[in-house]
Amino acid sequence: MAKTKKQPRPRAETPKGFRDYFGAEVTERAEMLQKIAGVYHRYGFDALESSAVETVEALGKFLPDVDRPNEGVFAWQEDDEGGKGDWLALRYDLTAPLARVYAQHRNDLPTPYRRYAMGPVWRNEKPGPGRFRQFYQCDADTVGSGSMAADAEICAMLADTLEEVGIPRGDYIIRVNNRKVLNGVLESMGLADDEERSAAVMRTIDKFDKVGEAGVRELLGKGRLDASGAFIDGVGLSDDQAGPVLTFLTSKAEDMDETFANLRKAVGDSAMGQEGVTELEQIADLLAAQGYGPDRIVIDPSVVRGLGYYTGPVYEAELTFDILDEKGRPRQFGSVAGGGRYDDLVKRFTGQAVPATGISIGVDRLLAALREKGRIGGTDRGPVVVTVMDRDRLADYQAMVGELRQAGIRAEVYLGNPKNFGNQLKYADKRNSPVAIIEKARGIVQIKDLILGAQIAESATLEEWKERPSQFEVPRGELVARVRDILDGQGG
Amino acid sequence: MAKTKKQPRPRAETPKGFRDYFGAEVTERAEMLQKIAGVYHRYGFDALESSAVETVEALGKFLPDVDRPNEGVFAWQEDDEGGKGDWLALRYDLTAPLARVYAQHRNDLPTPYRRYAMGPVWRNEKPGPGRFRQFYQCDADTVGSGSMAADAEICAMLADTLEEVGIPRGDYIIRVNNRKVLNGVLESMGLADDEERSAAVMRTIDKFDKVGEAGVRELLGKGRLDASGAFIDGVGLSDDQAGPVLTFLTSKAEDMDETFANLRKAVGDSAMGQEGVTELEQIADLLAAQGYGPDRIVIDPSVVRGLGYYTGPVYEAELTFDILDEKGRPRQFGSVAGGGRYDDLVKRFTGQAVPATGISIGVDRLLAALREKGRIGGTDRGPVVVTVMDRDRLADYQAMVGELRQAGIRAEVYLGNPKNFGNQLKYADKRNSPVAIIEKARGIVQIKDLILGAQIAESATLEEWKERPSQFEVPRGELVARVRDILDGQGG
Repeated sequence: MAKTKKQPRPRAETPKGFRDYFGAEVTERAEMLQKIAGVYHRYGFDALESSAVETVEALGKFLPDVDRPNEGVFAWQEDDEGGKGDWLALRYDLTAPLARVYAQHRNDLPTPYRRYAMGPVWRNEKPGPGRFRQFYQCDADTVGSGSMAADAEICAMLADTLEEVGIPRGDYIIRVNNRKVLNGVLESMGLADDEERSAAVMRTIDKFDKVGEAGVRELLGKGRLDASGAFIDGVGLSDDQAGPVLTFLTSKAEDMDETFANLRKAVGDSAMGQEGVTELEQIADLLAAQGYGPDRIVIDPSVVRGLGYYTGPVYEAELTFDILDEKGRPRQFGSVAGGGRYDDLVKRFTGQAVPATGISIGVDRLLAALREKGRIGGTDRGPVVVTVMDRDRLADYQAMVGELRQAGIRAEVYLGNPKNFGNQLKYADKRNSPVAIIEKARGIVQIKDLILGAQIAESATLEEWKERPSQFEVPRGELVARVRDILDGQGG
Repeated sequence: MAKTKKQPRPRAETPKGFRDYFGAEVTERAEMLQKIAGVYHRYGFDALESSAVETVEALGKFLPDVDRPNEGVFAWQEDDEGGKGDWLALRYDLTAPLARVYAQHRNDLPTPYRRYAMGPVWRNEKPGPGRFRQFYQCDADTVGSGSMAADAEICAMLADTLEEVGIPRGDYIIRVNNRKVLNGVLESMGLADDEERSAAVMRTIDKFDKVGEAGVRELLGKGRLDASGAFIDGVGLSDDQAGPVLTFLTSKAEDMDETFANLRKAVGDSAMGQEGVTELEQIADLLAAQGYGPDRIVIDPSVVRGLGYYTGPVYEAELTFDILDEKGRPRQFGSVAGGGRYDDLVKRFTGQAVPATGISIGVDRLLAALREKGRIGGTDRGPVVVTVMDRDRLADYQAMVGELRQAGIRAEVYLGNPKNFGNQLKYADKRNSPVAIIEKARGIVQIKDLILGAQIAESATLEEWKERPSQFEVPRGELVARVRDILDGQGG
């Protein structure tokens, strides 16, 4: 209090790449998370909530597409004697914390351990349009089972989940690939022990989405002139050598058996490759037995995302309907969930390999898709607003909203400065309120149907207006019943 | 890949002061948050979710009981050219972000702005037993209304919320005090402009909870020998001077009017003090009109927590039932929520004073209270487990769980190594499963009622066992119906 040095005012801004969510944005996400949790729970998965903060040591360097240690995370050092405190960081996904939790509590947890987790994760990346540094994930993983039944189940559950949150069958497809098949391809090419060229092939495959078959062929060979005119050096394989990779990427046929035959050709004599194809066959069989056909879940070796990260089957869910991009051109909405098998999950903690497989749903992208299609995104309906005609009668107005709330009706007394009555109605309008209440005299209240009022103002004929007036007076005792009638008439 | 330097294994541990939440701990909290959000919403409050990360500049130094800037928060500096990046921090409560949000979006938000927010907050404090550095808060605030009706409403809503989550009337009390009354007391003592002694009186009042009336009298006067034998210097007021403070703290009477009379005496001629008493009277009148009597919400000037932080009315909710402390002695559970009026909320951003009032519920403490009383804390019921007798028939077992899930029954196929059948039943036991399914032959399944089985193993007579066997065989087609029967019989 002694010093009163004048400080500049702080800026009222979120940090770059962060944002605020209001009203329906929050409640719609909460409802979606609840629905997803419902499906996960029905499939036998248990809830887990770990803290947002982990030691950097426990998180490790698992973030895909990032080379420098700690790059990509928000990290800081604990205050401690002599700057020797632990480095802590915000989790960047829900899988790294799962590995830590399983390693820490493995003696108390059932095996297999099936858990779901949902919550925000943080990435210390350059924010861009629509790209935020905090976003929600919603994961389910089975730890401790090497069975393909666990993978098939995750895919089936993902299909059920998408339908549960409002993506109808036909509007999504789940594609399944397998890293072991790719490893088999590399083996059959004689690259199994050639780490450098294997890695170069992997990087090239990652570009398949963008450059297509011909582009990959060039990049595996002599190189390629990219769109900007720059020449990208190739891996230097001969056409013959590159063959199996291209056979792998393009092996998907109309008939599933033909796909598998193509894959077996691509992996040749590689035992690991053959095992990978067998795994895909097992998954397809298990899914077929449960009625999940290729209209929902399909074996598709052209899926390359995550192939470098996972160790066995890889899954990706895409929404197949078109949306308009920023330039008004139709494009597919794309990926909303991905996952796969990662059998080294807890090995870095315990030395023991533990098989695990799981899925992560990008909840914010899924919400964006539903909003894009108009399936959610209605604004929250506001409260019934009881206006203040006489400041001294506030207690009576509070009693009115008390009764309305008791009846389960969202309601409030206007708590701003009541002097300007117009402001009270403007407030009700801004809140998207369905009804305003005005006390006309002791024992008499006027009820204004604000939704109908707006419709009449816009379009209705005089006849309609007469039949169903947008405002009328009722005895105080009928307040709740009449408001209920109006709300029912407005559709909920 | 080139370097294979052997690294020590990371420790699988949460950072100090953080913990993991499993199963019912997570779902019970989610259910509580949903119930609280339901009440807040019905009262007309809109959802807001700001990010976990704020700039240190925007958060300011609002954390109570902390003197050094940034002390108490987890903070780090953004990577940027030349170390000039913004300092960011995890939010330590939900009020500081509200101030930033309101200042940032005030032109788009309705006035008054009524919002609720729920989520984790982080405190960089020394962790202790049962004290964690991440915990949940659940806030509701009305920004832009100076009316005591806003304060009364917050108190009424808090009472409704506590009852909604399972604290029956009589097991809680909400106490209301007012900072303006205390200011009036200081004014009437002639200390209004004596910042140093005012602050000393404030610090003394903060100890009222611990040292009681006699202790405060000593501390306001010459000083006091504390329990450890150390002498604590007093403020140095004469008994006469200290009088109004003690009158204030002890003014609560059986009769509310008497309380107000005592308060008016304590504040003497102070206009601010008289205004404070009038505010408390208004709150009491508004609450009485809505039926919230002193059995639920009471004016109690002995409430001192938060009195230094807020600028007008202050509220605190306490649970009044006894629990046993770590030494087995009964003690009151204590505070689970607190709040008050803070009229300078956004002033540091905009220069404009905006009145605001609100409440924060400590959700984790409330959950602890309900668990302590046995009102929640049942473990989650596990899934029906379909065991694996023949690995080649996995697809059929998956079809069984598919049908069970379709019927809304939580179910899964055992996905661990099926070789040792005993492990499968141990797994079902660890999962707290109600039922296990064993295929006896094609078309015949055995259903084991694991709950009844456990009861029989413990206590039942042979007669009971005969009447209702804990396991029986049924045709495959009756699987779902018979499992449903057992679950219904188990009570849910």
